[in-house]
Formats: sequence, structure tokens, C-alpha cells
Amino acid sequence: MSNFPVPIAVDAMGGDHAPGREVEGAILAAAEFGIPVLLVGEEIALQEELQRHSVRQLPLEVVPASQVITMEDDVARSIRQKPDSSVRVAIRLVREGKAQGVVSAGNTGAVMALAKILLGTLPSVDRPALAAVFPPLGGTRTVLIDVGANVDCKPEQLRQFAIMGATYSRLLLNIPNPRVGLLSIGAEQGKGNELTRETYRLLQQTPLNFVGNVEGRDLYSGRADVIVCDGFIGNVALKISEGLAEAIQRLVQEVFADRLSSKAGDSFTRRIDYAETGGAPLLGVRGVCTICHGSSNASAIKNAIRMTAEFAAAGLNEKIEAELHKLGTKSLSRRRGRPALSA
Amino acid sequence: MSNFPVPIAVDAMGGDHAPGREVEGAILAAAEFGIPVLLVGEEIALQEELQRHSVRQLPLEVVPASQVITMEDDVARSIRQKPDSSVRVAIRLVREGKAQGVVSAGNTGAVMALAKILLGTLPSVDRPALAAVFPPLGGTRTVLIDVGANVDCKPEQLRQFAIMGATYSRLLLNIPNPRVGLLSIGAEQGKGNELTRETYRLLQQTPLNFVGNVEGRDLYSGRADVIVCDGFIGNVALKISEGLAEAIQRLVQEVFADRLSSKAGDSFTRRIDYAETGGAPLLGVRGVCTICHGSSNASAIKNAIRMTAEFAAAGLNEKIEAELHKLGTKSLSRRRGRPALSA
Repeated sequence: MSNFPVPIAVDAMGGDHAPGREVEGAILAAAEFGIPVLLVGEEIALQEELQRHSVRQLPLEVVPASQVITMEDDVARSIRQKPDSSVRVAIRLVREGKAQGVVSAGNTGAVMALAKILLGTLPSVDRPALAAVFPPLGGTRTVLIDVGANVDCKPEQLRQFAIMGATYSRLLLNIPNPRVGLLSIGAEQGKGNELTRETYRLLQQTPLNFVGNVEGRDLYSGRADVIVCDGFIGNVALKISEGLAEAIQRLVQEVFADRLSSKAGDSFTRRIDYAETGGAPLLGVRGVCTICHGSSNASAIKNAIRMTAEFAAAGLNEKIEAELHKLGTKSLSRRRGRPALSA
Repeated sequence: MSNFPVPIAVDAMGGDHAPGREVEGAILAAAEFGIPVLLVGEEIALQEELQRHSVRQLPLEVVPASQVITMEDDVARSIRQKPDSSVRVAIRLVREGKAQGVVSAGNTGAVMALAKILLGTLPSVDRPALAAVFPPLGGTRTVLIDVGANVDCKPEQLRQFAIMGATYSRLLLNIPNPRVGLLSIGAEQGKGNELTRETYRLLQQTPLNFVGNVEGRDLYSGRADVIVCDGFIGNVALKISEGLAEAIQRLVQEVFADRLSSKAGDSFTRRIDYAETGGAPLLGVRGVCTICHGSSNASAIKNAIRMTAEFAAAGLNEKIEAELHKLGTKSLSRRRGRPALSA
């Protein structure tokens, strides 16, 4: 009997190499971990892809969706004009309880927007946030939150990101009392901009293990387990890291070509590969949603599916809501009388 | 006869390995390029350091300064309490025309503040900005401006950064019509935060070769020659890059130890070394000021001294002022009736 009776929905059409990598990743997750997977997308393409593998015994099922939101699509327009997109259908399966979580390597903005619209936001959360787990170059797996483009954030929103990130680190990365740092430009309290100075004050008042300001280099130094920032800077930070890691990898390939096929070379490549971590959880929505890099390979999709199943099993959302509720979050949306996004 | 009759002042006490690396770098610059150097700092320590080398024929001179601003010093307090600091004396030499430029590997905040106070800001410039030249992993030497912690910038200030950065790229990096990008979180015009959306509009109206929004990964893709951003995000971006490059270098040392002593390994290390570029020019002050990484080695100091001499010879400041004046800068300081920092 499987430990995961409710399947994970995979948007099989979203990634740069869809549906090939998504189908392979689903097969690996089903075979290795026994996780049932609903592959959502163009039925014929998916059946063809499945027929290339021997999957007779595996808990895999195709759920048809006739449209695809591409990486280039405008988010708002594609949501209006593509009601039967694979990502929308996949998220709807979560809302309807037919899946316990969703994985997509598609257009990040569209996945986030649809998750907010279809699943809704947790009662104590103003804005869901995307948490990226960085490669453990500094010895710890540092979580950066938000990398999901919540721009022009308020201090209270960063406080919520900190609580969500710490809960994630504790439950899913098994760090008992995660050290939370605030991304800034100097260690002292006064350093930073208006947003960080005010957020610093708020974070000091929480029971979190707040270690103060950290700097860009601390994403790799192991000084903090969770690093909090506005989604603009988080997104830039993630893309700089990916871009530099790729550029250095190319350089390493040039310079050490003869060693790269070795076991050590292979381990090197894996250790700086952002796709390997398996995707970023969207925290703060009423449901489990993991967003993978567009260039994810089958192994990354497999890891994301496992992570999503663990996320659901751990009840991360419920714990986040309880944590925020306990710490007395004043929801900005509600204070201002705006309806929640889930409306 | 030297091509550089007026010397460069070097804050010999600022860096992490002062005064050893500063003295060595000055000796190299004097020997290789015939640039006269004024070494500013504790007289006995500097003379001792010089005696360890054979420098009889070289145009080197010690200028005494009894105090040192450390990396840990609070900027405002150290400026008040250390009137005879090596960096202050070095910058004063530029103001008095005894040096044509200054190089410091010391406390960046203190160098910037003292340069603004002692040299003053160019008439059309609101805020001087620090421009970092990134390692040419993407084929071009991309300039990121501002990395000097001008936080909470206005769009007009970013427009000035763009013009200063483009002038620098054109004159010192020999790029005839530099492509200017705006650091954001998506290529389309609407993407970004309030600051970038308004700055986008302003940059479109300049005669600059504006290529639109660029993303974090474009620091290494070669898509732009100059990338403009607020100093908060620029500082974070620089430190993430340095931190990741160092972490990967450590990993490469572990994995490819046997190859690192080779010529290829050496070239690899140099190509991702941020200190090698020789320092970041502070643009927009009335005088030439180059800020080096605290961990700069002798070769980085040497390169910074050469860069500073070239910067002065090219009349970069005059060209920046002419360019800003021509493009009709509305100085925010003046519009608001605030006195210029040079007052």
C-alpha cells in the first residue's frame, strides 16, 4: 500500500522541455516513492510519451487539458483567455481534493496567480510567497523568501514571510530552531533601506531566532537558515545566482573538461545546480503548490513531486496558519478592508 | 619621463591586509607603469614595509596619517573622531591638487562619505554612485551601477546613474555605444516595482542605447554593458556574486585540486575573481576615487592605481558633467533647495 493515497497533480505542459521531462519525472516519483501522479495536459501527447516507457504497474493517470500557458504569455491575459490550461486544471484538482498538491515547471507568474485565485490565501496571510532553497554551499540549506516577485512589500508582509520561511525550514528541512536573517547591506541594525529598518524592528519582536541583518554573501556562508527579503530583490538574487552558477559551470567545463566526466566532476555539477533542489514551495496558499525551474530535468521534477507530497503530509499550511495566528498577525488586507485574494 | 606627472594617493591602511598589499601594489604600479604614488598612513609601518623591497628608483613617497578607519568602524562616528585617518588625508591630497586621484581598499561607506564631503559632488549629480565592473563571464565587461549603497533612490537618480555608467563604459572600457539595461524581474516594460517602472519611462526618453529591463542573470549573459539599479539591490547583487564565486572556488579547489596549479586552473581562478578588476570607481564626485575590495591583493591594488590614473587622464568626471548637463538633468537636491553635499 502506498503512503500517499491522494495523488500529486503535475502540470505536464509547463516546462521548457514539456511534456518529456514532466512525464519522466512522474514515472520516477511513482516508481521510486510510490507516489500516485495525475499528469495534466494534452491527452494524446501525454499518452504517447507514457507509451515510450513501461509504466503498466505505476499509479499514473492522465487528466486532459487542452491549453498551455507559455513562458512568454502575459499572465493576466493568459489567465482570462486560457480557461482550460494545464496549470489551471492541475490546480483545480487540488481545490477539488482530487490531488493533495500540484507541481508546475511553467510560467511562475501564472502558477502563482492561479494558485492564489483558485486555492485562496491562508486567513492570516497577506501575500503568498515563494521560498527558494539554495544549494548548500555554505553547509546549510538556506531558504530565501520571497523570490516570487511580491514587489513593493510592507514590513508586516516581510514579517509574515519570515514566519512562513521558518516554519518551512523547521518542518521540511528539519532545522529545529532556524536562524532567520534579514537581507540587507550591512550587519548593523541601522543599515539598509526604509523597508529593512522597519522590518528589523518587527522581527526583533517575534519569538523567531532572528540573527539580524545578513548580506548577499550570506546566501552561501551558512550564517542563516532563512533569509527574508522583498520579492523584487529575492527574484534578482535568485537569477543572479542561477546566472553566475551557469556561467561558472560553462567555464569549469572549458577548463576542466577532462575531469568533468569523473565522479567528482559530476558531484561538483550537482552541488551548484539550482534545479536539483526540486522546486520552490509557494507558501501561504490554501493548498500545496511547488514551482519548478522551467529548465527542470526529470530528476528535479521527481524531487519536486516528493517534496510536494511531504509538504502535504507534514501539514505545512496548517502549521503556518497556526504559527501566524499565534503570533498575532495583523493582516494588511483586512485592516484596509480589501477582500482576500481567495474571493 | 612619466606620462603621469601628478601622483595617485593610496590609502595604505584601509584594506584587510594593510599596509602590505597596498605597498606592494604601489610598487608594482610605479615599476610597471611609472605611476608616482603617495602612500598615506602610519609613517614607520610604511617605511618598514618599503624597506623590504628595492624601491630606490621608484616614484614613491610616504605621506603620514596617524589614524585608521577600520571596516568595523561606524562611518559617521569615525569621520568625526578620526580627523587624521589615512583615507581622509589621501582624499585631501586630491582636493589640494597634490594627487590626481585616490585609491582605497578601506571601509567603503567611509571612503564614499569622505569623498563626497571633501571633494564634493558634480553640479548636475544628486548622488555619487559606485560602479562595479563584473568579471567578463558573458563576454562583455558589464558595469553595475550603483553598488555603493545609495538606498531608496528616486527614478531621476537612476537616470543619472545610467548616464554616468554609460560614460564610464564608453571612455574607460572602450565600448562605443554601451547598451544600458535596467535591473528588474522580467523583460517587459510593465515588469518590476514602482521605482523601475518609472525609471523605465525616463530612460526611454534619453538618447542612451537603452535595451529595456534586464534580469539578474544578465549580469553574466552579455546582454547589456551597463546595468542600472538602486544601491541597495546593487550592493546585494555584488555581494551575492562575490559570495557565490568564492563558494564555488572553494568547491573547485576541493574537486579539481590536482588541476588548479595548472595554467588553466590559474586562469579559471582569475576569471571569476572580483578583486582582479581593480576596484570600483565612485562616479559623480569632483575628483577621481576608486574603491577596492577589502581583501584586494597587490595585483588588484596595482590595477586600481592604473585605472585611477587612466580615469583622471580621460577626464571622466568632466565628460560625465557635460553629458548630464546636455541631457537636462533636473537635480533633485537643487529642486528641493537642499545644499549640495560639497558645501
